[in-house]
Amino acid sequence: MEIKEIKLEELDPEKFIEEKVKEIASIVGEGMAINALSGGVDSSTVTMLGHRALGDRLKTYFIENGLMREGEAQKVASTFRELGLQVKLVDARDRFFEALKGIRDPEEKREAITRTFYRDVFGKIVMKEREARFLLQGTNYTDVEETVAGIKRQHNVLKQLGIDTQEQYGYKVIEPIIQLRKDSVRVVARNLGLPETIYNRIPFPGPALAARVIGEVTPERIEVVRKATKIVEEELAETGAFQFLAILHEDKVTGVREGKRDFGLQIEVRCWDSVDATTGTPTKLPYEKLEKLAQRITTEVPGVVSVTYNITKKPPSTIEAI
Amino acid sequence: MEIKEIKLEELDPEKFIEEKVKEIASIVGEGMAINALSGGVDSSTVTMLGHRALGDRLKTYFIENGLMREGEAQKVASTFRELGLQVKLVDARDRFFEALKGIRDPEEKREAITRTFYRDVFGKIVMKEREARFLLQGTNYTDVEETVAGIKRQHNVLKQLGIDTQEQYGYKVIEPIIQLRKDSVRVVARNLGLPETIYNRIPFPGPALAARVIGEVTPERIEVVRKATKIVEEELAETGAFQFLAILHEDKVTGVREGKRDFGLQIEVRCWDSVDATTGTPTKLPYEKLEKLAQRITTEVPGVVSVTYNITKKPPSTIEAI
Repeated sequence: MEIKEIKLEELDPEKFIEEKVKEIASIVGEGMAINALSGGVDSSTVTMLGHRALGDRLKTYFIENGLMREGEAQKVASTFRELGLQVKLVDARDRFFEALKGIRDPEEKREAITRTFYRDVFGKIVMKEREARFLLQGTNYTDVEETVAGIKRQHNVLKQLGIDTQEQYGYKVIEPIIQLRKDSVRVVARNLGLPETIYNRIPFPGPALAARVIGEVTPERIEVVRKATKIVEEELAETGAFQFLAILHEDKVTGVREGKRDFGLQIEVRCWDSVDATTGTPTKLPYEKLEKLAQRITTEVPGVVSVTYNITKKPPSTIEAI
Repeated sequence: MEIKEIKLEELDPEKFIEEKVKEIASIVGEGMAINALSGGVDSSTVTMLGHRALGDRLKTYFIENGLMREGEAQKVASTFRELGLQVKLVDARDRFFEALKGIRDPEEKREAITRTFYRDVFGKIVMKEREARFLLQGTNYTDVEETVAGIKRQHNVLKQLGIDTQEQYGYKVIEPIIQLRKDSVRVVARNLGLPETIYNRIPFPGPALAARVIGEVTPERIEVVRKATKIVEEELAETGAFQFLAILHEDKVTGVREGKRDFGLQIEVRCWDSVDATTGTPTKLPYEKLEKLAQRITTEVPGVVSVTYNITKKPPSTIEAI
């Protein structure tokens, strides 16, 4: 791997921002660039760097893929509007669910999402925005490392996977934060004036809630994990943990409701202590919190009869389940 | 339900034993009885009551169905040999795995095991032991209650399900502990002189380790859950919990081994605080114990990359997963 990491202790955030803004401005020249904003700290940082470098010549899109958390699209758009940026919202929900139909293998799921995102949705936007020939992307150092190691195929590391986007899709990828791990990205984000809800936002995977569904991804199953995710985030926001998530399992387990057998769904909760997702330890949540999580999820999410808590470190576990 | 419960506070164990021994002796008369011993507190208690009533006219069988825990058959046989009873060991492993092939539905699994046990294995033993016309069985009050309520089909409650064993299989069922819940059975067991390893033994389900496998039951998958069960029992024996168990899931999750992606197995650990299994609360195990469980299971059981801990109460969960 040729990319050189900039460690947190080496990082001068103001200098880094200045250099990256210059670099983006110099690569794009008088041209236009586009980028996709997910609302995570990585893509938000890249959006701000791009906006500083290019102003209105950066077109920022938020793709509603149907796999986002509750109210996420609206929240992200309004946050950036307050920062003086216009975010264009594209509703591509049907297209993503169509592409995911019948797929159960996690790698195929990631591929379907990547393909739909780049070729069917973003590719078409690029065709429409004829002047834009540059794509800003929030690939970070851990993404590259894990992809190279073969642990996980990150949706945003096309180049490292040998896909030449210039030739295949007609645009050039710029990855301003590729030398930083998550802890450094957060420092840069804060220095860019992003609000705490973004610079301290817990990581969210590329395939969004589809990464939180074992087995087939359908609108109904996404709705189950979306409701569970909302509860987990409400309950665990105060913990200061690195990341917390809900996973909908495909296995069904026996439960009992009103004295009758109920063969229902299982949700797995994970909550991680970690610096940069390379390694992680399950957070030692108090049992009252675990009880409340189980109680709320089995009461508020229809069909769920069982909730478990992950107790395995990474490695051999990973942060997400698929 | 016509059966009248004898609550723990009403129970006079010596009187109960005396009455049941008389009752069995009077029903069987000069005849012979047989029973199947699993080594659990229920069937062990019934074996002792039967032995006191009938002596050598009770033929006790231990069916090795391939679904037992490590070393279980040998341990049970030697325990009872020391108590002066002969236990006949029958190896029926192939027959059970044959019957379970391809079955994924939990109810069908239970049915296949019940059918194999009563018709193919125990039925044939009964045919061989021509003189025995009585079957002693360890059905307890909670079994009956849950079956009547439709929560679970217990393998040993044929009568409550409307199956007339006299007509179908040629023997009559005697259920000496049907009025007792587990806590009372333990008191009777202790008063019968059974060792603590039996009267304080944690409950084990009728379908044995097959109840701990979500999805198809194969010798390989049973071996995985058997290894995990051994670790869970070693680590949690000292907790004094009502029951603790390991469940092999069918869902696979992403893990990482030696820096490479490893799509592997998940084990769910459950540990219950409960009096009689009617309701239950997950035991508040210290996190060091949970960490040790996860570390041992992912290290010692091949293929396992993830371990979770159940945090849901019963209800809406049940003690076992299938």
